[in-house]
Amino acid sequence: MTNKIDLRSDTVTKPTEEMRKAMYGAEVGDDVYGEDPTVLRLEELAATTLGKEAALFVTSGTQGNQVGIATHVSTGEEVITEAQAHIFYYEAAAISVFNGAQVRQIPTDNGIMTPEQIRRAIRPKDVHQPRTALVAVENTHNRAGGTVWPLAALEGVRAVADNAGIPLHMDGARVFNAAVALGVPVREVVKHVDTVSVCLSKGLCAPVGSVLAGPRDFIERARQWRKRMGGGMRQAGVIAAPGIIALTKMVERLAEDHENARLLAEKLAQMDGVDVNLDKVETNIVIADIANTGLSVSDFLGRLAERNVLATSFGETLVRFVTHHDVSRQDVETAVDAVHHVVSGARVH
Amino acid sequence: MTNKIDLRSDTVTKPTEEMRKAMYGAEVGDDVYGEDPTVLRLEELAATTLGKEAALFVTSGTQGNQVGIATHVSTGEEVITEAQAHIFYYEAAAISVFNGAQVRQIPTDNGIMTPEQIRRAIRPKDVHQPRTALVAVENTHNRAGGTVWPLAALEGVRAVADNAGIPLHMDGARVFNAAVALGVPVREVVKHVDTVSVCLSKGLCAPVGSVLAGPRDFIERARQWRKRMGGGMRQAGVIAAPGIIALTKMVERLAEDHENARLLAEKLAQMDGVDVNLDKVETNIVIADIANTGLSVSDFLGRLAERNVLATSFGETLVRFVTHHDVSRQDVETAVDAVHHVVSGARVH
Amino acid sequence: MTNKIDLRSDTVTKPTEEMRKAMYGAEVGDDVYGEDPTVLRLEELAATTLGKEAALFVTSGTQGNQVGIATHVSTGEEVITEAQAHIFYYEAAAISVFNGAQVRQIPTDNGIMTPEQIRRAIRPKDVHQPRTALVAVENTHNRAGGTVWPLAALEGVRAVADNAGIPLHMDGARVFNAAVALGVPVREVVKHVDTVSVCLSKGLCAPVGSVLAGPRDFIERARQWRKRMGGGMRQAGVIAAPGIIALTKMVERLAEDHENARLLAEKLAQMDGVDVNLDKVETNIVIADIANTGLSVSDFLGRLAERNVLATSFGETLVRFVTHHDVSRQDVETAVDAVHHVVSGARVH
Amino acid sequence: MTNKIDLRSDTVTKPTEEMRKAMYGAEVGDDVYGEDPTVLRLEELAATTLGKEAALFVTSGTQGNQVGIATHVSTGEEVITEAQAHIFYYEAAAISVFNGAQVRQIPTDNGIMTPEQIRRAIRPKDVHQPRTALVAVENTHNRAGGTVWPLAALEGVRAVADNAGIPLHMDGARVFNAAVALGVPVREVVKHVDTVSVCLSKGLCAPVGSVLAGPRDFIERARQWRKRMGGGMRQAGVIAAPGIIALTKMVERLAEDHENARLLAEKLAQMDGVDVNLDKVETNIVIADIANTGLSVSDFLGRLAERNVLATSFGETLVRFVTHHDVSRQDVETAVDAVHHVVSGARVH
Repeated sequence: MTNKIDLRSDTVTKPTEEMRKAMYGAEVGDDVYGEDPTVLRLEELAATTLGKEAALFVTSGTQGNQVGIATHVSTGEEVITEAQAHIFYYEAAAISVFNGAQVRQIPTDNGIMTPEQIRRAIRPKDVHQPRTALVAVENTHNRAGGTVWPLAALEGVRAVADNAGIPLHMDGARVFNAAVALGVPVREVVKHVDTVSVCLSKGLCAPVGSVLAGPRDFIERARQWRKRMGGGMRQAGVIAAPGIIALTKMVERLAEDHENARLLAEKLAQMDGVDVNLDKVETNIVIADIANTGLSVSDFLGRLAERNVLATSFGETLVRFVTHHDVSRQDVETAVDAVHHVVSGARVH
Repeated sequence: MTNKIDLRSDTVTKPTEEMRKAMYGAEVGDDVYGEDPTVLRLEELAATTLGKEAALFVTSGTQGNQVGIATHVSTGEEVITEAQAHIFYYEAAAISVFNGAQVRQIPTDNGIMTPEQIRRAIRPKDVHQPRTALVAVENTHNRAGGTVWPLAALEGVRAVADNAGIPLHMDGARVFNAAVALGVPVREVVKHVDTVSVCLSKGLCAPVGSVLAGPRDFIERARQWRKRMGGGMRQAGVIAAPGIIALTKMVERLAEDHENARLLAEKLAQMDGVDVNLDKVETNIVIADIANTGLSVSDFLGRLAERNVLATSFGETLVRFVTHHDVSRQDVETAVDAVHHVVSGARVH
Repeated sequence: MTNKIDLRSDTVTKPTEEMRKAMYGAEVGDDVYGEDPTVLRLEELAATTLGKEAALFVTSGTQGNQVGIATHVSTGEEVITEAQAHIFYYEAAAISVFNGAQVRQIPTDNGIMTPEQIRRAIRPKDVHQPRTALVAVENTHNRAGGTVWPLAALEGVRAVADNAGIPLHMDGARVFNAAVALGVPVREVVKHVDTVSVCLSKGLCAPVGSVLAGPRDFIERARQWRKRMGGGMRQAGVIAAPGIIALTKMVERLAEDHENARLLAEKLAQMDGVDVNLDKVETNIVIADIANTGLSVSDFLGRLAERNVLATSFGETLVRFVTHHDVSRQDVETAVDAVHHVVSGARVH
Repeated sequence: MTNKIDLRSDTVTKPTEEMRKAMYGAEVGDDVYGEDPTVLRLEELAATTLGKEAALFVTSGTQGNQVGIATHVSTGEEVITEAQAHIFYYEAAAISVFNGAQVRQIPTDNGIMTPEQIRRAIRPKDVHQPRTALVAVENTHNRAGGTVWPLAALEGVRAVADNAGIPLHMDGARVFNAAVALGVPVREVVKHVDTVSVCLSKGLCAPVGSVLAGPRDFIERARQWRKRMGGGMRQAGVIAAPGIIALTKMVERLAEDHENARLLAEKLAQMDGVDVNLDKVETNIVIADIANTGLSVSDFLGRLAERNVLATSFGETLVRFVTHHDVSRQDVETAVDAVHHVVSGARVH
């Protein structure tokens, strides 16, 4: 991948030198016995940062979500979430596999469900209908283009959920991007949800790992689900150590990624044949509709790759670009040129 | 329930005298051993009627659907269906419970998905995404108000499914209503689907039972799912016998129910405060929006019950009326008067 | 099957004339709405007979067990039962399918687990281990040969379960045979278990159906599992009516089946090459080991069938015979002669 | 844990200095995209070492087993394994949770099932019975005390499985211990199984991770199960790097652990009140029955811990000791003295 500008995802970020040193020197123990001091330190730090009682180190964002959801939900129940939420769209049907529970999908334009939509979707008590067990929100919302939940929207959803006695989970894979975009501490962003899963990789650059946070007794119960899915690691301190750096030193710089994404979006929006909804570019994700370029997505991506710029398919005519730590402002400008070349070339044909 | 006009559902129909005699005299054997001659006769009759290779007698429409779906689908896969399909909405999350599979919901206004909607919902091969294993249609569509799938729409869905190598299942709980409404034999209605579940109760008046029909080897495999759910009955001929009468003698009279529903709908549509979309009244179901009566649904139903007319709640401002064998044209007129009284009374207050 | 003496199972019993008349005349309603008076009467009768608060009519013994177990058990838990219990051996892995729960198998010689075996199998609290959620006993025990749980053994198991806070379920498919063998009312036999499933078919001759009984709130919760499995039937009174006769008029006569089984067992035990453990012949089941006849089980059964006597394979060298309402003492004697002929013929070769 | 001799498990081993350096310098990429060169190198090395076509890096032994089993097994099927196999006993019912499949338990004294036991447990085709989908062996067998499967026993099981068309999986968490004990390359030990999961942690000292190996198309399908359980890690090369060292440099030294275990076992066996079956001490695990010391297990372990020696409870009167890289021969002698002290003290009271 040398010399490529990789805008496929912020998951491609590599650990920093400081993170590598932290791995090298990490104090470790057997985390299945609860004896890895670095993991314990990360979990405590994450809980404090997120304003929750406790936290659990897990192997990935998918595991954070699925351990959390499985701890909330029982067989034959229903989870309400947005129609293109990652937990439904990209986690291989895990909610249904692990819990025998079904997912109720709420269609939205921007990933943000309204309290009224949720209120209507909550099931009455009826032998034919599954009990509504959980409402899950995604913040920022990946498939909607990195959109941020306004704090008032979360408050509204919380009120509806409380009224029905239903807990809230947040897929916060990129919740630090939301916090930075809103200009508030992350704990403000997650205060309305019972549980949240956050990624230490992606924009924060840790090589591996996520954290699930919530009430202490919930996290205790979650440990068995983590074990069942194979998330009980041994000397896990070696990967928790860079996670500590991710939480303490990598959050503020996300603002740069947002600026770069904004720049990219504006430039793309000016190109003939490329449509970008600038209103939705709130964080580090840019979704472009290339239908009017006359190129298929696979052709577009292939030609771009020839110019050493990588992006990803996001539907029949959609391409997603993600900015991150390993993409500089200069890289973005280079990428813009490459897209311009591809699109112009296309139109010439 | 004496003297009540029961429009809650066509599930309340009682067996006819002829059906009771058939039960009394049914020749029986142990159906788990495949030795009940009446069950075998019903299954053969159903297969022929539906134009499928084989059929399986089951205890209910839910069991017919779920045995069928479970035979099609494996863990971690996805089923595409309409957002308010009975199999998703009213079967207690059974698809996810039995198969560890998730349901992809396609929103529609009238219960009829377009081929394009389905094409877009079929998943690409991708480690993050569940394999699309089945498309399921509901005909007539209950929550849309008994709407009928046009034959061309089914043909279109078939083409999309074939193109992706995905089988089709029809929840045909009321498929005979669809056939009567379309004026074609039921086998024409189901010819585009691989498997179909049909109810012998509901409008056809058998006391208990449904049938799942499809390819012979599919039905053989389905037997284990039926057994697992407890549908392996012993001298089941006693309930298969009225099912034979349901299939042979009760279909044509569904036209009366449709006429009665049309009458009811037109009368309701004329009342102040009651909204009925007459375009959707194609069979024996009438859905009325009573928001503008000023009454809550529970008040409305309570007052109607005081006048010995029963209907059912179908959402926050919706009421469903269903016509059937045990409701005469005269009953419908009486019911109309009762609704008029309730609505007028409401508006007086 | 005309003129055949069918000793394969007591499931082949046909409804009596009185039962057929009851079906013909049954008062019915829609049982999914809880409005079938005959079903309600059967459920009340069953609850009273079994000494439980409430009961639920289901389609089969498998459904009775699985609805009961699913109402007790959650995902990731463990059920303790005997190694060859019907719920594990012959219900198509339903416990794991419906609940995502695993079955811990206790090996025994006679189907009767000891309290000490159960105590040792109950899991400690540990992240690696599933929680023990249920102990299930089978009475009489089919694969052990219709053996009866001594009341003291049930009391012992109850004490162990109570100590660990774990409920007890009884697969009482043939619990009336146990009661008759013990000479006590059935409520004495089931008083140590929280829930019990009993069959109305088998020795009691109803054509279809079983009953699950237990605490009132448990039975309320069980209704959703019944619905999910497709056990929500409509005018189910037509099959509940013979069930009422089964409970009130068919129990005492089981003693004849036991006498016939005893006679059969003793005669078989005297034949060269046929081994029967007479100590285990406590009810209406006789298991014979035919290893020393020199015949394979399928040859043995085939030759017996040529003489119009049917029995069933029960393992590599085992054959099961079951006596019931449709087999007279004379039939047993005829069957004995047939077996003698087959065995003698075999030894001649 | 400073200065403690930790014999609880070989999972407590810490990464070596060389492993830490490898983490520091690991070349990485996004493994979900298949682009982490170090992970790819580890997977290729593992496949070669194990003599399989392909391998998959996973987060733990539990994940290796469960991804493997889930790729083999479908809903409603049955897995045959030893009654105290880790996959059944210590993986939180995962087989049933993930697959809706049940586990058939074969009781043994030493963890080694006979071909005849397996042959008898394979199910016939029957609507009541789950299909047998997999036979799983554990080598070495943890709860039996680290016992090794003789190669001929594996060959015998393979023949039975082949005859029935059923695949074999090996839980090879400690299969390198088996290979060292047998004095053959590990590929000889696993050649009779289709798939195997091996741990890089435990005796091989990597901090985190296991590998699942098998046919190439199987491993391709397994990727989705890994993703679903959250095992899709990003820059996983940082933990794959020490795994490479585990496979290449840490295997031979397991012989020392076996010698130390043998020493420990012999010394313990000589103590009054301590029973050790020396025949079962084949690798690095020693199980002692302390019933005759008069001490409870928790008292015994508590007193031992006061003397800075740690072991673990393995049942009501059983204690398990495990030797490993971080326990020297001198440590074993110190531990023996400590046990002697505890036991002698106990007998004085």
